[in-house]
Amino acid sequence: MKITVAQLNYHIGNFERNKNLICGAIKKAKDCGSDLIIFSELCIPGYPPLDLLDRLDFIENCNITVNEIAKECTGITAIVGSPTINKRPEGKKLFNSALVLSEGKIVFSVNKALLPTYDIFDEYRYFEPEKDFSVFRFKGLRLAITICEDLWDEQPFDNEFEKTRLYTISPMEELAKQDPDIIINISASPFSYTKIEAKTNIFRSKAIKYKVPVVTVNQTGANTELIFDGASMLINSKGEIIKRLPFFEEATETFSFEDILTGSVSGNDIKPDAIYLIHKAIVTGIHDYFAKGNFKSCIIGLSGGIDSAVCLCLAAEALGNKNVRALLMPSRYSSDHSVNDAVALAKTLNVRYDIVNIEKPFHAFEEELAPLFAGKSRDVTEENIQARIRAVLLMAVSNKYGCILLNTSNKSEAAVGYGTLYGDMSGGLSVIGDVYKTDVYHLAHYINREKEIIPENTITKLPSAELRPGQFDTDSLPDYGILDSILYQYIELQKPAETMIREGYDRAIVNKVIRMINFNEYKRYQAPPVLRISSKAFGAGRRMPLVARY
Amino acid sequence: MKITVAQLNYHIGNFERNKNLICGAIKKAKDCGSDLIIFSELCIPGYPPLDLLDRLDFIENCNITVNEIAKECTGITAIVGSPTINKRPEGKKLFNSALVLSEGKIVFSVNKALLPTYDIFDEYRYFEPEKDFSVFRFKGLRLAITICEDLWDEQPFDNEFEKTRLYTISPMEELAKQDPDIIINISASPFSYTKIEAKTNIFRSKAIKYKVPVVTVNQTGANTELIFDGASMLINSKGEIIKRLPFFEEATETFSFEDILTGSVSGNDIKPDAIYLIHKAIVTGIHDYFAKGNFKSCIIGLSGGIDSAVCLCLAAEALGNKNVRALLMPSRYSSDHSVNDAVALAKTLNVRYDIVNIEKPFHAFEEELAPLFAGKSRDVTEENIQARIRAVLLMAVSNKYGCILLNTSNKSEAAVGYGTLYGDMSGGLSVIGDVYKTDVYHLAHYINREKEIIPENTITKLPSAELRPGQFDTDSLPDYGILDSILYQYIELQKPAETMIREGYDRAIVNKVIRMINFNEYKRYQAPPVLRISSKAFGAGRRMPLVARY
Repeated sequence: MKITVAQLNYHIGNFERNKNLICGAIKKAKDCGSDLIIFSELCIPGYPPLDLLDRLDFIENCNITVNEIAKECTGITAIVGSPTINKRPEGKKLFNSALVLSEGKIVFSVNKALLPTYDIFDEYRYFEPEKDFSVFRFKGLRLAITICEDLWDEQPFDNEFEKTRLYTISPMEELAKQDPDIIINISASPFSYTKIEAKTNIFRSKAIKYKVPVVTVNQTGANTELIFDGASMLINSKGEIIKRLPFFEEATETFSFEDILTGSVSGNDIKPDAIYLIHKAIVTGIHDYFAKGNFKSCIIGLSGGIDSAVCLCLAAEALGNKNVRALLMPSRYSSDHSVNDAVALAKTLNVRYDIVNIEKPFHAFEEELAPLFAGKSRDVTEENIQARIRAVLLMAVSNKYGCILLNTSNKSEAAVGYGTLYGDMSGGLSVIGDVYKTDVYHLAHYINREKEIIPENTITKLPSAELRPGQFDTDSLPDYGILDSILYQYIELQKPAETMIREGYDRAIVNKVIRMINFNEYKRYQAPPVLRISSKAFGAGRRMPLVARY
Repeated sequence: MKITVAQLNYHIGNFERNKNLICGAIKKAKDCGSDLIIFSELCIPGYPPLDLLDRLDFIENCNITVNEIAKECTGITAIVGSPTINKRPEGKKLFNSALVLSEGKIVFSVNKALLPTYDIFDEYRYFEPEKDFSVFRFKGLRLAITICEDLWDEQPFDNEFEKTRLYTISPMEELAKQDPDIIINISASPFSYTKIEAKTNIFRSKAIKYKVPVVTVNQTGANTELIFDGASMLINSKGEIIKRLPFFEEATETFSFEDILTGSVSGNDIKPDAIYLIHKAIVTGIHDYFAKGNFKSCIIGLSGGIDSAVCLCLAAEALGNKNVRALLMPSRYSSDHSVNDAVALAKTLNVRYDIVNIEKPFHAFEEELAPLFAGKSRDVTEENIQARIRAVLLMAVSNKYGCILLNTSNKSEAAVGYGTLYGDMSGGLSVIGDVYKTDVYHLAHYINREKEIIPENTITKLPSAELRPGQFDTDSLPDYGILDSILYQYIELQKPAETMIREGYDRAIVNKVIRMINFNEYKRYQAPPVLRISSKAFGAGRRMPLVARY
């Protein structure tokens, strides 16, 4: 028996595109003489469809698409993921289903039992959890078809609660009673640079525990902030990875069941470097945001600093240098090297750039506000005005030329609120909003791995917002090494302040940093969507009350 | 036996305040000789605590507070709502519990079974649903203690799926087997102007079905976007409302069990008018955003139009006229009446106002951008620049004087994207972002119910953004009566386009409006939190994918 793994890049609600992708892969699989082709979780509507699932017309479009695809399944069987209506009188209106299609019909279906409802996941918002489990009998084999989290009944959590069993049932334990020959897992599992090992181990442990091979099929590509890493796996019954499909790329590959069962480790499954993956993830994220949103070009405010430099390189790689433009907006406080470094980078990347000085509008605002500000001394207000003038200019070019403004704030500054709302926090998409400053440096070095693209001076100079004379980030923030370490423990690991202090961090710094994080929740509420590369990004996966005391 | 209902206004994470509120009410109840005092759902941490629940230190603070309150419960028993740790090895880490406190101890606890996970609710994100149910025996009575949704096992839904039973179990059916004498329901139920009747009927129907009285205890006050209406009810065993506590106000009242059991309808439970409630809800929402956020004063951009006029009146009522300031920012396209009407309103309300003309910064931007825009004709870019200049000015005053910018966009324009991101869409809080334009007129008339506060001309003139000569909203939008009706059916009722067209709406208009709603999701993603007064507000309760096709 031959099995085809189809790791594809779906677009939410774009049924025509998703159908064509799926039918294309079915055709390819047929040409290879495949018996079974497996697509990923909710591939029909794309993942995550969110509240589109509340609309009956959307569900009807899913059904229509499934039926059209079923007609293509002649001489081959396909497993697709789609929402289906829960026809029982009680419970949520939908199931998150794996549908087995053959000869024009849905011949079998499996509903997801473990519904992730944490971080960016909201599945219990829409779906009823399944309580009955059956293997699918196919060509003399018993297939245990599971949907993503269904195999994740034991998982480590990033918090201080000592719990590893989030769910009270284990679908695979139930399926195991029916003596399956293979576990199939279809997923829509977004990338996190800290979770690659954990994810792999979950699947490997199931192969070992149940002594059967595991085939996982993940999707690839990005939908707004979520970037799916693909990397679908074939694991033999000893828990060894026989084959891993590429990260962040489409792939449709066919294997014989015997190869999966008895195959040995290919040797080429080297665990990729985190920065390499983060880089590829972000490029994928930018690319798909534009491709799926039907946008072509972007604009970036280029300051001469490292954040905007890294973003410009990532955008140029994702969209092509011809589709990227830079705007340099020096002020009275900009140092010469800022403009020079920015120009050098734009020239190296062969990206169009313009220089607009913000002095005149700044002066106009100062003049208009003078009567209102009489007797008041200069403060952060004037710094914010400069940042907001830059946003007005960037958005003007964006509006006039139809290019999307990319936001260049990093995660460290987003965390502590070191940015101006409606100023440098503007943009359609945040490129590195989930990358801590120390990792921005790693990205810069990675970008420069073969030759100097980002000017050395941009990397080595002290970070500065250049909004007042002689200003440096370290005037108001701890050293980024310490800051990022505290941020990671507080945000990703949810560690209490007292634990960090006990572990050796300075009490005053810890408390100051946590205060800054909490105080600036209101700014992040209005921030653009952030390309997610960690296990806890700002945005939909982290929901904090605004008017609260903590 | 005497029962006290404590309808209070909690602050998320402010354990000290919540404890003092609760202990104050306990003291008051003791003075009345009460046996049992009932507080609302999750009153210890405030509702909704969101991802603070992921932090073990936050849960520990809840426990400490509960124990401190228990010590005050001498000679009286209290029911409080708090998260508690799920000590079972499997399942979510927490329960949403009602704790019965007496003589320094937790003597009984009930865990919530039905966990709302839709719209603004995310309870399954944090809590394990309970499956066992027991009445609490107290002074010879059997109390069926339920937590909010536990009684909502049958409820109408605003969508096209024909389903009324969202849950597969009914806690009250289980409790009924133990023959309770009274049903107690503690809740944190936010206001929606369309749900007052439905909410009342749910509780009344349970009293009738189980032939016992029902006491409901809701919280009041606002936490960011959510406004809790209070309106706790005492319902006799015939399902008649004996007493309803005030809407949007704190109240602690004591009743004898006999009165609840046999009491008759007071006659003063007149269903309040929707606009009256919406007005009171928004004033509460503004007031608590400032009071709980430790802010004092606000600034509003006053255009002479109806939206900002209504917002100014609401803010003046919530914060006091001395804490409100207005900024008038006319341009070359502003009509004389705009400034005159705005000045007249500011004077009537006795609110400080300043006038800053945006011409100079506008000219400066035009000059700076001229080389980049050479050969390009004027378009929406120049309109957006004006809107963004106003945001820069408003935020400058906000920064300099520490006053919070209130956003004045209405729901109709937010829906169709008739607003400028980082321009008139700016602000810390959206005052009328959940109020359709036609209801903004109703609010204006309500505000003017006794005398003309908002100038007649502001109400009667044709709505215009005044960003180009002779511009009116109706140039690009359908009549607001038709627009709002389509918006309500699409957003609140989730009705498919085809259904609306079949029901008589013009196909071209319906399709245009829906396209505008969907296309502008990206703008709303970055909008401020919106005071929620409907069953479906923009913000956390409506989660739509950005890069999607639908």
